[in-house]
Amino acid sequence: MFAPPVNRLITELARLPGIGQRTAQRLAFHILRLPPEEALPLAEAIKEVKETVRQCEVCFNLAVEPTCRVCQDERRDAALICVVEEPSDIIPIERTNEFSGRYHVLGGALSPIDGVDPEDLHIEELAKRVEAGGITEVVVATNATTTGEATALYIADLMRERAPDTEVTRLASGLPVGADLEYADEITLGKALSGRRRL
Amino acid sequence: MFAPPVNRLITELARLPGIGQRTAQRLAFHILRLPPEEALPLAEAIKEVKETVRQCEVCFNLAVEPTCRVCQDERRDAALICVVEEPSDIIPIERTNEFSGRYHVLGGALSPIDGVDPEDLHIEELAKRVEAGGITEVVVATNATTTGEATALYIADLMRERAPDTEVTRLASGLPVGADLEYADEITLGKALSGRRRL
Repeated sequence: MFAPPVNRLITELARLPGIGQRTAQRLAFHILRLPPEEALPLAEAIKEVKETVRQCEVCFNLAVEPTCRVCQDERRDAALICVVEEPSDIIPIERTNEFSGRYHVLGGALSPIDGVDPEDLHIEELAKRVEAGGITEVVVATNATTTGEATALYIADLMRERAPDTEVTRLASGLPVGADLEYADEITLGKALSGRRRL
Repeated sequence: MFAPPVNRLITELARLPGIGQRTAQRLAFHILRLPPEEALPLAEAIKEVKETVRQCEVCFNLAVEPTCRVCQDERRDAALICVVEEPSDIIPIERTNEFSGRYHVLGGALSPIDGVDPEDLHIEELAKRVEAGGITEVVVATNATTTGEATALYIADLMRERAPDTEVTRLASGLPVGADLEYADEITLGKALSGRRRL
């Protein structure tokens, strides 16, 4: 009952993750009500990221220049590399203000079932980066999921083989801060126990 | 820590209603991962609606031509007009398959507190449409809210004055289908009582 352009907008919005048909309709009508000077910047921003954003040649983070802002920042410790699955994983790590090194974005996690093998990730590039020398520690910050853990183990093995002098560490697993023991699942609690530290 | 185009996209997405900073970030990274041929149609769809969609000259529904699809449809009863606040209100009414007439979109509801007076809505155009003759019934389908009710009463008064031969009706208020009496609020239940029908 609406004009085809409106239906097209609803269809495109509904393709976004977490946006159902109803929400897409609501967003479309919101966009329709906006004056053009408020609606068009969103269209432009989408076009702009697709045209300008690419992968950093060193770490595969998002970048507009050949290398990303982290790799360009001379103040960041080049001897320390944090390995993450996706560029978006860098945000929460930066937010902690606890990490001053560089990154390496794998582009996913190993998952043979889904056909994701080591060659599909930027793992070889990581090995080469570390082999080139000057890296003292690789912090593996893949997700605490089955695939993230498998990826971490694979990387640890590879590093032992290709760069035995580089220390490989993994983010600690355990109770989230503020959590009640009562509500902790047994796997998390098991990890918290086995990873207990002396006070 | 990300490239400015990525931040711009997150900012623009976060302007949408119901999309917070976190969701905007998630959507932005989704768009970044998409191949251009899947991301650009959304940008195009936004541009297209802003360039092509306007208001129907007759009923103020959305239209790409001078009049909307409903007004162009000769099979729709031209003697019956359903008055709604927004173009999006037409969707649920069409979905009922109970209404075969035309529409009139007010562009909002009367709300003196927010500075929305009769001149700010397409009320005069409705009066002129009805005065022109051939309209037997005006169904007022504004929201069942304070402002929607006030708007309905205003339109009923105006119709009595300007087109006394046209019947003005209002959507029924009462219990939603499937509702438990126990959980009905007293205002809805009061409306259901005062609007009771003989069986």
